[in-house]
Amino acid sequence: MRLSRYFLPVLKETPSEAQIVSHRYMLRAGMIKQASAGIYSWLPLGYKVLRRIEQIVHEEQVRAGHIPMLMPTLQSADLWRESGRYDDYGQEMLRITDRHGRDMLYGPTNEELITDIFRSHVSSYRDLPLTLYHIQWKFRDEIRPRFGVMRGREFLMKDGYNFDLTKEDALHAYNRHLVSYLRTYERMGLQAIPMRADGGPIGGDYTHEFLVLAETGESEVFYDSAITDLKFGDRTIDYDSHAECQAVLEEFTSRYARTDETHDEALFNQIPEPRRRSARGIEVGQIFYFGTKYSDAMGAVVVNEAGERVPVHMGSHGIGVSRLLGAIIEASHDDKGIIWPEGVTPFHCGIVNLKQGDAEADAACDALYAALTALGLEPLYDDTTERAGAKFATMDLIGLPWRITVGPRGLKNGVVELTSRRTGVSEELPPEQAVARLAQIYGLARA
Amino acid sequence: MRLSRYFLPVLKETPSEAQIVSHRYMLRAGMIKQASAGIYSWLPLGYKVLRRIEQIVHEEQVRAGHIPMLMPTLQSADLWRESGRYDDYGQEMLRITDRHGRDMLYGPTNEELITDIFRSHVSSYRDLPLTLYHIQWKFRDEIRPRFGVMRGREFLMKDGYNFDLTKEDALHAYNRHLVSYLRTYERMGLQAIPMRADGGPIGGDYTHEFLVLAETGESEVFYDSAITDLKFGDRTIDYDSHAECQAVLEEFTSRYARTDETHDEALFNQIPEPRRRSARGIEVGQIFYFGTKYSDAMGAVVVNEAGERVPVHMGSHGIGVSRLLGAIIEASHDDKGIIWPEGVTPFHCGIVNLKQGDAEADAACDALYAALTALGLEPLYDDTTERAGAKFATMDLIGLPWRITVGPRGLKNGVVELTSRRTGVSEELPPEQAVARLAQIYGLARA
Repeated sequence: MRLSRYFLPVLKETPSEAQIVSHRYMLRAGMIKQASAGIYSWLPLGYKVLRRIEQIVHEEQVRAGHIPMLMPTLQSADLWRESGRYDDYGQEMLRITDRHGRDMLYGPTNEELITDIFRSHVSSYRDLPLTLYHIQWKFRDEIRPRFGVMRGREFLMKDGYNFDLTKEDALHAYNRHLVSYLRTYERMGLQAIPMRADGGPIGGDYTHEFLVLAETGESEVFYDSAITDLKFGDRTIDYDSHAECQAVLEEFTSRYARTDETHDEALFNQIPEPRRRSARGIEVGQIFYFGTKYSDAMGAVVVNEAGERVPVHMGSHGIGVSRLLGAIIEASHDDKGIIWPEGVTPFHCGIVNLKQGDAEADAACDALYAALTALGLEPLYDDTTERAGAKFATMDLIGLPWRITVGPRGLKNGVVELTSRRTGVSEELPPEQAVARLAQIYGLARA
Repeated sequence: MRLSRYFLPVLKETPSEAQIVSHRYMLRAGMIKQASAGIYSWLPLGYKVLRRIEQIVHEEQVRAGHIPMLMPTLQSADLWRESGRYDDYGQEMLRITDRHGRDMLYGPTNEELITDIFRSHVSSYRDLPLTLYHIQWKFRDEIRPRFGVMRGREFLMKDGYNFDLTKEDALHAYNRHLVSYLRTYERMGLQAIPMRADGGPIGGDYTHEFLVLAETGESEVFYDSAITDLKFGDRTIDYDSHAECQAVLEEFTSRYARTDETHDEALFNQIPEPRRRSARGIEVGQIFYFGTKYSDAMGAVVVNEAGERVPVHMGSHGIGVSRLLGAIIEASHDDKGIIWPEGVTPFHCGIVNLKQGDAEADAACDALYAALTALGLEPLYDDTTERAGAKFATMDLIGLPWRITVGPRGLKNGVVELTSRRTGVSEELPPEQAVARLAQIYGLARA
């Protein structure tokens, strides 16, 4: 993309309404614009990152054998009356009346709707196991929306639902989700720690929240620092293997890691003192096994091998897709702006032309642009006539992990400059080597 | 995808509520399920087609130089009061009150919101031309939703908005949209004819609707049959060239083609009698130049080269993304089911194993599956133990354009059967040749 043809309305001043760094940078980098309280338009740059994140979530869910679909944003109140949650949900549920006077709502989650789909179409154990998911906009009418996309009212979430014949199978689905979430977050450059969470009114041990450590996190968390050494990495896993998935769960959940809701001071104190940590975290996902709560209430039963009708065991599993943009920025920025991890960056690199209009510099930039594009990489080429300092400031603010700087002086020596946003380290090298280096970086970083 | 691991709840009976063929087949093929009146869940097969269509729309918009972004589903009523449309819109607008008593609405379209974004960020002619678009769910509270996704209440639409300094530039944007829409529909296997439409209360000559001819269409249309010979085909076009885009507009709109709203009997009768056609059509898109209507009302002005503040010239341009599934099926089916054009098919081909459990047949199917997948094609492999007749009926119903049938008898002679869904013609050939044939077909069909 050539910047002269793009829509990147960066702001010079810091908007006064933004209290945390991710919100500030998303506004300043022209990624979002508030449409009304807690509701945002995703400007082109923000939309690109949102799509990259969404794509990673899709790829990892499909890899785990989960099936994508899409449920609507608006739901009938009737299903929620059936599950008993219509009255429970309180004012965070946005209630709507249509022109015929029917009670509707903007879905804050989808257990009822997916259970209705299941019971309409599945009646035999032979169709299990089954995990369906979607990525769809949700609405929660927060009383005080804040922190930009981190606690908005209209937000994008991936929510998946497993249907299994037995508790054991459902716990395997739980483990599969845990593994797929570890992979998902790591591809985004995040360390998200699964922490034992509170099952809420339903109770039960089978729920973990995934938290990204960040000073601005809303949750207080307590953990054994040994857990931060764990990496899923590029190991392969057979998602059908109960044993393999269970082993990952044990590896990643055997160390103490809890939110304040489930924190146990006595257990915590058994950790060797130097490894005890308390910090703040941002919740970016949750997995949950809840047994037959909805299948009992809504009659989602299958016939088992013995010919008996039994309620299915279910769980629901969520990733906060739009909120992840905020979480990533909270975890990866400096005082100049955002630093995107390679896995989610909106453009793979920036090209800064130090002397737009200079025939040689323009030609070198065009050639770089063409070479990168031919490789499947997407550069953002600042072809404007801004001065160099302003161009660098914009590139730093929007956080592209790599920048190629092209100027007449370097070109005389046959070189351009390749700069890492994270380290600030620059290297002079011939244009074709800069291209090769980027291809290598993204070949490794992109699965 | 292996069918045994997929969720494809096909129905044997025709649901009684479905009045038109696309609605019937979408229900029977397990593509959608009604969640409430005019609101649908997209089951996995339907979702896959929806995504393919969405992807084509994105690719063609980006090719035309238009910039993707995303606006939220819910909007504040304030902007609509500013444009004067809040009261005009009537009961089709779903009005919502949030917990703080603020008036909101589920966006039926986005002129106000995009104009607000524009006026907040753009103030100079140097940032023009600019065309922004998004693909987002909309809601229109139809009094009688019907025909499945063809006239639903919650529907997916691409809507794009151009901002230009002059009327001439804005008409170039109009032409660019016309060209990009021609390409878009042709890639979906559709012939969508641009017809002069009614500008509604705004008036003006500058609006065309794109109509797909189909018996079940809601609109009566009148046209010169010579227009159906026109194809955009694989010609290349420079979207920056006013002349090239204008020439396409003239080529595709100089023949008589109008909906009943703008039909002119006298003009129509000037067409040589054998070429006069009246038929029914499904509207799948509309382009619209409306000048400074919104920029005047909402103060969207830029400073021009002479230093004067002038309102921008705008247009809006829509494609009915979810409705296109219905339109494609209306235009492409037979009495056995859907016939997907290659450009939008949910799976590139089906593999039917005539003797699941037979070691040789299973191995041949696995090898085909692996070979197709390695090429980037996505087969649906019916690996169930259903009898052959039922497998064929399902493949015909869900409409995959190609089917490979694998059985012990053929394998003895080293062949499988490749069958075209459209023609019904089968050909026996060695498995590797079947794979090569499909690669060739999709290499040509996919841009």
